[in-house]
Amino acid sequence: MAEEKKEDFHDLGLGSKASSSSFRSLNKDGTFNVNKYNVSFFEKINFFHSLISMSWPKFIGIILLGYLVVNTIFASIYYFIGVEFLTGIEATSPSNQFIEVFFFSAQTVTTLGYGRVAPIGNLANIVAAIESMLGLLSFALATGMLYGRFSKPSAKLKYSTPAVIAPYQDLNAFMFRIVNPQNNQLLEVEVSISLSMQRANTEFRDFFLLKLERSSIAFLPYTWTIVHPIDEKSPLHLLNASEMAAKDVEFIIMIKAFDESFSQTVYSRSSYKASEIKWGHKFVKLAQAEKNGIGIDVSRLDETEKVQLNS
Amino acid sequence: MAEEKKEDFHDLGLGSKASSSSFRSLNKDGTFNVNKYNVSFFEKINFFHSLISMSWPKFIGIILLGYLVVNTIFASIYYFIGVEFLTGIEATSPSNQFIEVFFFSAQTVTTLGYGRVAPIGNLANIVAAIESMLGLLSFALATGMLYGRFSKPSAKLKYSTPAVIAPYQDLNAFMFRIVNPQNNQLLEVEVSISLSMQRANTEFRDFFLLKLERSSIAFLPYTWTIVHPIDEKSPLHLLNASEMAAKDVEFIIMIKAFDESFSQTVYSRSSYKASEIKWGHKFVKLAQAEKNGIGIDVSRLDETEKVQLNS
Amino acid sequence: MAEEKKEDFHDLGLGSKASSSSFRSLNKDGTFNVNKYNVSFFEKINFFHSLISMSWPKFIGIILLGYLVVNTIFASIYYFIGVEFLTGIEATSPSNQFIEVFFFSAQTVTTLGYGRVAPIGNLANIVAAIESMLGLLSFALATGMLYGRFSKPSAKLKYSTPAVIAPYQDLNAFMFRIVNPQNNQLLEVEVSISLSMQRANTEFRDFFLLKLERSSIAFLPYTWTIVHPIDEKSPLHLLNASEMAAKDVEFIIMIKAFDESFSQTVYSRSSYKASEIKWGHKFVKLAQAEKNGIGIDVSRLDETEKVQLNS
Amino acid sequence: MAEEKKEDFHDLGLGSKASSSSFRSLNKDGTFNVNKYNVSFFEKINFFHSLISMSWPKFIGIILLGYLVVNTIFASIYYFIGVEFLTGIEATSPSNQFIEVFFFSAQTVTTLGYGRVAPIGNLANIVAAIESMLGLLSFALATGMLYGRFSKPSAKLKYSTPAVIAPYQDLNAFMFRIVNPQNNQLLEVEVSISLSMQRANTEFRDFFLLKLERSSIAFLPYTWTIVHPIDEKSPLHLLNASEMAAKDVEFIIMIKAFDESFSQTVYSRSSYKASEIKWGHKFVKLAQAEKNGIGIDVSRLDETEKVQLNS
Repeated sequence: MAEEKKEDFHDLGLGSKASSSSFRSLNKDGTFNVNKYNVSFFEKINFFHSLISMSWPKFIGIILLGYLVVNTIFASIYYFIGVEFLTGIEATSPSNQFIEVFFFSAQTVTTLGYGRVAPIGNLANIVAAIESMLGLLSFALATGMLYGRFSKPSAKLKYSTPAVIAPYQDLNAFMFRIVNPQNNQLLEVEVSISLSMQRANTEFRDFFLLKLERSSIAFLPYTWTIVHPIDEKSPLHLLNASEMAAKDVEFIIMIKAFDESFSQTVYSRSSYKASEIKWGHKFVKLAQAEKNGIGIDVSRLDETEKVQLNS
Repeated sequence: MAEEKKEDFHDLGLGSKASSSSFRSLNKDGTFNVNKYNVSFFEKINFFHSLISMSWPKFIGIILLGYLVVNTIFASIYYFIGVEFLTGIEATSPSNQFIEVFFFSAQTVTTLGYGRVAPIGNLANIVAAIESMLGLLSFALATGMLYGRFSKPSAKLKYSTPAVIAPYQDLNAFMFRIVNPQNNQLLEVEVSISLSMQRANTEFRDFFLLKLERSSIAFLPYTWTIVHPIDEKSPLHLLNASEMAAKDVEFIIMIKAFDESFSQTVYSRSSYKASEIKWGHKFVKLAQAEKNGIGIDVSRLDETEKVQLNS
Repeated sequence: MAEEKKEDFHDLGLGSKASSSSFRSLNKDGTFNVNKYNVSFFEKINFFHSLISMSWPKFIGIILLGYLVVNTIFASIYYFIGVEFLTGIEATSPSNQFIEVFFFSAQTVTTLGYGRVAPIGNLANIVAAIESMLGLLSFALATGMLYGRFSKPSAKLKYSTPAVIAPYQDLNAFMFRIVNPQNNQLLEVEVSISLSMQRANTEFRDFFLLKLERSSIAFLPYTWTIVHPIDEKSPLHLLNASEMAAKDVEFIIMIKAFDESFSQTVYSRSSYKASEIKWGHKFVKLAQAEKNGIGIDVSRLDETEKVQLNS
Repeated sequence: MAEEKKEDFHDLGLGSKASSSSFRSLNKDGTFNVNKYNVSFFEKINFFHSLISMSWPKFIGIILLGYLVVNTIFASIYYFIGVEFLTGIEATSPSNQFIEVFFFSAQTVTTLGYGRVAPIGNLANIVAAIESMLGLLSFALATGMLYGRFSKPSAKLKYSTPAVIAPYQDLNAFMFRIVNPQNNQLLEVEVSISLSMQRANTEFRDFFLLKLERSSIAFLPYTWTIVHPIDEKSPLHLLNASEMAAKDVEFIIMIKAFDESFSQTVYSRSSYKASEIKWGHKFVKLAQAEKNGIGIDVSRLDETEKVQLNS
C-alpha cells in the first residue's frame, strides 16, 4: 500500500510543505498562493509578462501615460531649442507656445506630420528625426502588445462551483464538470487532478495524482464531467466528509487543450476544497436533443440533485 | 466482449446523449450541431475568434464600417469645436464644411496628414493628437487581424464524398480517402474515426473509437485511404447496410497534421452517415507514374467501382 | 518474416505505387515529385503559402509591381476626376500632370502626405481617404509577409553527399551524417529513415521504416552520424550494391527538431538513392579537441575513407 | 552491466569525443563550446537568429546606424539630383543644404512628411516614392525584430550554484535545485541530466542519461530539487569526490517547460563539473508557510548545510 501510494505520488512542484490548516495552494482562478522574496526587481519582472497579463484599463492607462510623457519630454526639448525653429507657431505667451510645441511633438511621434508647424534649423530637425523614428519603434511595441493581448488565447472554461461525491457503477466517485461557454472549439482536452492532503499528526502535506475514468477527450462541444472513482487504491478510500475536512484536502485541477481559433495550446487551472464538495449529490442533465443537434443550458452547470451513495 | 467494448469506448466529449434518429453531431464541414443557452454575451463571444472566423466580406465590411463610424464621430467633434479652428477649410455651407472636416479626420486617423487642412488652437489640436494615436492603435488591431486571417493555416483536405465498404485482405473494411489539394506540405498526419450509434431500443447513443489499419503517416503528398477493418472486435461486425441505417451510425473523422508552410498544427474534421456509404464498392486508382514522379487526378477522388465483398 | 515486414511497414503517405525504375519520390532538397491534376486554381493555391515560399527576388518583384499597379490605378482615378481637384499640381501637359498625380498617389498610399499636393473637393478627398486606408491595410499584408519570411525557421541542415555502408560492431550499417552549419541551436532532434524499393518482378514498391541505432538526440551542436545496422531483420539484409541498384532503393530521410532561436518546430527532408551510397567506406572524424571545447571542420562533411566491411 | 550502460547511453549529439581533461561541453549559461570551420558566411549566419540573440545595445545600435546610413544615402541622391527640386530648402551653403536634404530624407523614410520641404519634378518624386515604400518595409523589419525580441520567451531559471551529494532514503543522491524568479508561470516542466565522463586511460568520453527520482512536474511555483539517486545502476556508483574529479565528470542539464505568458515552449540548459559539487551537504529549506500560502526566500537558493552521507 505504501508502495502504491508512492507510485501515485505526483509532486506538481508543490513539495511536501508545512502549512496551516486552511491552506490553499491554488486559487479558484488558477493563480498560486506564493510569494518570492529577495529577488531583484529586474529578475522578477518580465515586462512582456506584465504587459500581457495586466488588466485592460491599466494597459490602456500605461499607453496614454507613455504618450503624454514622451510628448512632454520632446515638447520641452523643442521649447528649449526655441520656438523660432518651428514654423507656424502662432501663440505668443510661453505657456501657449509650449502647448503648440506639445501638439507638434504629437504630430511628429505619430508620423502624422501635418506640416503647418514644421522644424527649421538643424537642432529642431535632428530632434524631429529622432522623435519620428522613436515613435515608429515605440508604437510598434505598443501596438504589438495590444494585438498580442487581443490574440492571446485563454481557455475560459467554466467549472461547476461545487464538486460532488456521487455513485459511480458500484463505487462512489469524486466528480466535477466543465463547459466551454465560448464559440471557439477546444480540441484534445486533457485533465489531471492532484490531491493534496495533510498527513495525520504532522505539518506536512502529501500529494497524489488521482486516477480518472477518462483523462482526455477529442473535442469539448458539450459539457464534460470529470470522474475520479474512489476505489480501494484511491487516497480518498473510506474517507467521509468530516475526515476530508480534517485532512484539509485540496483537489488541484489542471486542464490542457488546443484552441482551434488561436492555433495554440491553452491551459486552465482551478481547485476544490473539502467545503466545496456536495456529498450524495449528482449533476443534473444539461443536454437536450433538439431538431438539429444538442442544446446545452449553461446556466444550470452548478445544479445538482440528491442521490443515494453506494456504501 | 462487453469489456472490450468498454476498452474501445471513446467519449469525444459527446457523451451518451438522447437523440432523434436523424441526429448528426458533426457536420460535413467540421462544425458541431450544438447550441449553448443562458451564456452571457461577453462570456460566449470571443472577439478575436469571431473576427478570425467570419467570412471575408463580413470582415472587410466591419473594417470599412469602423472607418466610417470613427471618422463621423471625430468629424462631429471637430465640427462642434468649430471649423474656424481648422486651417484651409474652404467650404461655406455647413454640410460641405462637415464633409471637409470628415476628410480631415480621415487624414488624421491614418496619420496621412497632408496639412492642407490642419488644426489650430488647443481643442482641435488635442482631438487631433488623440485621434492620430487612436488611429495607430486601432489600425494595428485591424491590420493584425487582417494578417492573422491571411496567415491562419487550415487543413483544406478534400474527403471523398462517399465512404465505401470494400474487401480488405480476408475481411471487409470501412474506407474513405483524402487528398490535400493545396501545394503546402502536410506532415505527421494523424487520423481517428469515432463511431456513434443508437443503442437498440433506447434513446441513447454509444461511441466507439475504431481501430485503423494505419492511423498516421509521415507526409501526405498523394492520396491516403483510411481503412477500418471490420473484424470480430469491430462494433460494425456482422452489421449490414440496413442495420447500419437503423442504428443511425455516424462516423466522426478527426485529422491532425503539421502544416509546414504555416509552421503550425492544423485540424480537419468531417463525418459520414449510413446513407453516405457505398457497399461493395472500392475506390479507383488515382496515382499514375509519370516521367518525373507521380501524377494524381484529384477530380476522380470520389470515383468507385463495384467489387465483390468477402462474406 | 512476412509478418515482421508488415510490422516494419510504414506507408509515409507514398502508397505502393507503380513506378519506372529510376523513380525518385523525394528530391534531395526535400520536395516531392508529384503533380496534382484537375484541382481548381483557388483550391490548389494558398496565397500565404505561395508568398512565403517563393524566392526573394520574386517576392520583392511582386511588392514593387503591386506598388506600381496600385499607384497607376489611383493616379488614373484622380486624373479622371480632374487635376484641378488637387492643389499644387504644377505641370501643364497631360502626361506630366499624370506623373504628378502618380506621385501624389504614392504619397497617399504610404500615408506620407507631404501636402504640397493635396486633394480639394469631395471626390478627390473620398478617393484619398479610401486610398490611405487601403494603403495601411495592404502594406500591413506586405510587411507582415516580409517579416513572416524573415522570421520563418528552416532547418538548414547539411547532409553528407554520399551515404556509406560501413562496419558497425559485428555487422555492417547504412550511415549518413548531418551538421547544422548555422549558429542557432537545434534541440530534440528526431530522425526517421524510410526505405522504398521495387518488389521483384512487379511494378510495385514496398516501404519499410528502418530501425536506427539511435533515432533522437537532445542537441545537435556537432555532427551526427545516423546509423541503420543491417541485421537479419533489416530489409537490406544480404543485399549487395548491385542488388540495391536493381531494386532501385530510395532512402527517404525526415528530420524534426526544435529551433531555439525561432521557438518553433522545424522539419528537414532528403533522400539517398543506390548510386549515392559508397560501399566499404566510413566517414572521417571532423571533431577536434580545442583549448575551449570542440572544433568542427564542416568542409570535410562528405569525406570518407576505405574500410573493410564485415562479412 | 555493459548491457545496462548501453541502455543508459544517451548521445545528446555530443558523441564520444577526444577531449582535454578540463573539457566543458556546455557552459553554465547554456551555450556550447564549439567552433565550426569552413562554413561560408551566408550558410553560418542566419540574420534573424543574429538579430534576435544579440545584446540590446548592439541591436539598438544597428537600428540607429541603419537609419543614419539610409538617410545619408538618400540625402546624397536628392542632393545629386539637385536641391532646386525640393521646395522649401532655405540653406544656401552646400553643407547646410545637404543637412536639410538629410532631414527631408528622414521625414520621408518615416512617412512623417511635414511637407515644408517637398519634392518637385519627376526625379526627386520618384526617389521619394521609392524611399517612403522602402521606409515602410524596412521599419516593418526593424519593429518586427524589436517586438520579436521583446516577446521572445526565455526560461530565466536560477540554478543553485553548487550541486550536492546528499543522503536520499538509504542511498546517496546527486541533487541540485532550481527556482523560477519571474512572475510568469512555467508548466509541464521536464528535466534531463546527462553525465559525461572520461573513459579510464583513454581520451574518449562516455555519456549516460541519469535516472531521476522525478523527471517532470506539472507546475513550478516554488523551488524544485532534482534528484539522481546513486544506486548500483548509476554510473556514479561507488565513485568518491576525487574519482569524480579524475574522471572529469560533467553533468549536463536540460530543462523544458511551457511558458504560459508567452504560450510557448522554452528551454534552459546548464552544467555542473566535479568542482561544483558539495559532498555531504544538503539544501536548506526555502519555503515558509504564510497566512495566505507559501513564501520562498530566493536569496538562499545556494545555501546548504552539512549532513552525514549514507555509506
